[in-house]
This record gives sequence, structure tokens and C-alpha cells, in this order.
Amino acid sequence: MSENKNMTQRNPTAAMVAIGDEILSGRTRDANMHYLANWLTARGVNLIEVRVVPDVEDVIVAAVNDVRATADYVFTSGGIGPTHDDITALAIGKAFEAHTDVRYDALAILKEWYDARGEEITPARRRMARVPEGASLIANAVSGAPGFRIGNVFVMAGVPKIFQAMLEAVDDQIERGPSRISFTVRGNARESEIAEALAALQASHPDISIGSYPGKTGQGRNVAIVLRGYVREDVHAVALKVHEIMQQKEMRPELIEGMPVTDED
Amino acid sequence: MSENKNMTQRNPTAAMVAIGDEILSGRTRDANMHYLANWLTARGVNLIEVRVVPDVEDVIVAAVNDVRATADYVFTSGGIGPTHDDITALAIGKAFEAHTDVRYDALAILKEWYDARGEEITPARRRMARVPEGASLIANAVSGAPGFRIGNVFVMAGVPKIFQAMLEAVDDQIERGPSRISFTVRGNARESEIAEALAALQASHPDISIGSYPGKTGQGRNVAIVLRGYVREDVHAVALKVHEIMQQKEMRPELIEGMPVTDED
Repeated sequence: MSENKNMTQRNPTAAMVAIGDEILSGRTRDANMHYLANWLTARGVNLIEVRVVPDVEDVIVAAVNDVRATADYVFTSGGIGPTHDDITALAIGKAFEAHTDVRYDALAILKEWYDARGEEITPARRRMARVPEGASLIANAVSGAPGFRIGNVFVMAGVPKIFQAMLEAVDDQIERGPSRISFTVRGNARESEIAEALAALQASHPDISIGSYPGKTGQGRNVAIVLRGYVREDVHAVALKVHEIMQQKEMRPELIEGMPVTDED
Repeated sequence: MSENKNMTQRNPTAAMVAIGDEILSGRTRDANMHYLANWLTARGVNLIEVRVVPDVEDVIVAAVNDVRATADYVFTSGGIGPTHDDITALAIGKAFEAHTDVRYDALAILKEWYDARGEEITPARRRMARVPEGASLIANAVSGAPGFRIGNVFVMAGVPKIFQAMLEAVDDQIERGPSRISFTVRGNARESEIAEALAALQASHPDISIGSYPGKTGQGRNVAIVLRGYVREDVHAVALKVHEIMQQKEMRPELIEGMPVTDED
């Protein structure tokens, strides 16, 4: 096994709890999970679990308490707007047994935002200043109303543009892990035609994770083998072996650096 | 409260466990969750939770055992192909404490599929015939290799086309629930401008669920209010009230039947 100082370093872990009936009913196709997954991967943080839960307080409390015990960071999305169905702030407060009410620091931010636009803080807008005691605020450059962080949990909006802006706002609070190098070998093959060779390769290279992904239709010959690991030369060496295996079988392999995103639409 | 024979009827519930490192790393944007959500809603089944977990046996076992205790049906996606990283069948077997090995009924299906194409059952392909004892098979019209059902858990492929074909194959095993009627009122408004009126409406109509969704950018004036319930005339009546509220505020409301899907891309 190759010498690798990074192997002893640990990747921080993260979990996500997406909150919203609209995702579970099929009305909305969630986009935040995919965005967060890539954002974390770029920072060397491993996303280890995602849960999607409805707008039900007890369910939110249980899910958040479950995952925050295991993951280093937890990101929630959704339910922090001004309407009656936005119950996330209270649920998170309950999960942490923290008193949750309108906080003056959050209200001051809202006041400044709406003042600048010649608008008033209505009772509905005041709801967006409800933040658990002990939480720190997360700036919202898109629409003013802040998210918050309590313990290891980042509570953010469900609207993608705001979710993304809030991620940028907490970027310096996220510890980086050793980044993984990835290579992809695509070939004119079906998975079952190279499965045995890949299994042998995986067995002899336990430090490299080898993933095999068929095309999105499940038909045709368009497999992608993804190699991931911490030491560039090691990952590249295994990628070359996959390339060679495919070459010998005349599968017209193509080796590319990275792990291009596929939308399984 | 209106007379409603459906109110005593219960909607069956479902949970999903999506299995795959490629979703958590951001390589793949999952499409099955959104498809399943709509498929279940159309059948009056409530999707109550989704979990995305990595290709790690113990984690899969724990997640499946957790959700199968609560939901009437569980659907898993991913990890049933021929390669070394496909470990779902064994994990599900472990969750049910059922012996899992190559089964002759599954092998016969594979044999027929590959025979018809002049191909052989390689050891890798044999892996796809590993099915826990006591499970029934789920047909795969796309690529042959079957999924399976054990207890209330449907184990299906991650490739969207195959996932969808397998859903059709188990359609008659899913009990229908009373279907919910939905109306959507869109308006030239921000959430906070109608939040108080909506909260009052929700309080006086506990049978109707009222969801409020801002546009995907978090800016501009394009709110969608979704009304859902079991009795068409009741849901429609509340939708008309929302329309009236918006009309009075000159928000140019538009009332449409249903709950158009939005892709939050």
C-alpha cells in the first residue's frame, strides 16, 4: 500500500434534512440536495445521509436529533418563511430544547432590509425573526430574512437561490477535509462485461473506491467507472488499468479526469 | 365541517431508501425520488419519508429496518446490478434475517433473457440472481434482471428507466388510498403579504392543507398557494377564498386545478 499522509486524516461528515410536503407530494423536484452534495465534495466533506421529511414538528425534531448525533454538520432546507406552514425554527428550537421567539438581532436585520425598500415589518414578517436562543444568524443576501446555526445544525431556506447564498455565508465555518481525486473511464460496455475484472481490481486496491454506473436508460453500452482516492498517482494508476481492461475488450474507453455530473432525468 | 366519507379512510403510507454513493457525492442528481413521489400521490399513497444512504451494508440495513417499521410500503433504489459495489440484495437479506443467494427462479429469468440475445450467464450476471429467501420477484422489462419484494419492501434498480418499469410491474400490489384534490392559486405577490390571511384561512379550515411556496429565486412576486383536501367542493371553496384575498390586494390571481410540478433547477 502506498505511503499517504492523508490516509490518517479524516474527512468531516455532513447530513441533510430537507423539510417540505411539496417534495414528498411530488409538486417540487428538490434541487438543494444535489447542490449541497457537490458543494461538500469540493470541500472534502463527506455527505453521509439525506432525509426528506414533511412539515410535521415531531418528525423534524426526531430526524434532526438523529442525524446531528452522527454527522459533524447538519444542513436543513425549507420552512423558514413567513407563512403558517413554516415551522422549522420552532422545531429546531424544540430539538435543542432552546427557547425560540422573535429575536431583536434578527428583527434588526429584517427592519433594515424592509426600511431600505420602504416597506413595513408586518406580523407575518416578524415570524421570520424567530430564532432559538444561543443560535448565531446566517446572512441572506437574496431576501433579507436570516437563517441560523445552532450547535452543528445550519438552518437554511428551501428556495434554491437563498439556500445557495446561505451556504456561501457559512463557508468559513466548514472545516475542510482532504480532497479526493477522481477519474472516470467511460466505455462502450455493459456493466456485466467488466464486473469480474473490476471486482479483482477493487480487491487489490482497497484504498481506491471503484464505482460502476450504467447509463440512465439501462440499455445500450455506455458504462462509467468512477475511481476515487486521496493520492493522485494511485487513482490515476487504477484508472489506467480500467482503461487497459476496456481496451483489450475493444470497448473504446475514454479516460477523463474528474467525475462529470449526470442528471438522471 | 362537511360530511365526508373519505375522512375516515386512511391513506396508505410509503417511504423510500435511495442507495448510492453517486448521489451523496454529487455525481448523479437523483430522479427516482421525484418520480416515485408523483406516482404515489396519483395512487393516494402518502410518501412520508425519503432517506439517501451510501453503499454501506450496515447503514442500508439500519435505514430499511427503521422505515419499514413505520411505513406501509418501502421502495429502495440502486445497488442491484452485477458489479462489486452492488450490495443491496445482501443488505436487504440481512435486514430481514433471510438467507440470500442465487435463486433458480431468478436465474431462469436471466437465462431466458440472455439466451434470447445469444449471450451467456457469466459469474457477474449470476450475482443479479441473488435474492433473499421468501422474496417474490419483480419483473424488469428493460434489462431482464429482476428486483424483488420481501415483506413490505420493494427492492428496485437505480437506473431511472428500470426503476419506473419495476414500479409498473408492482402497481397491482399497491393499495390505493382516497385521492386528494388540489387547486393552485398563483399571484403577483410575496408570501409575507398574504401570510396572515392564509393563517386565518388555515385555522378555520383544518381539513384543507394550505401550502405557500415562493418562486425559486426568492425574489420577485410569484407566489403559489396550494390547497389540498379530499372533498372537491371544499377545496375549491377555499381556493376561491384565496383568489378573492389576492383579488382584493390587486395581486392578479390565477386559479388552476391541480398542483403543477415545478423543477427547482
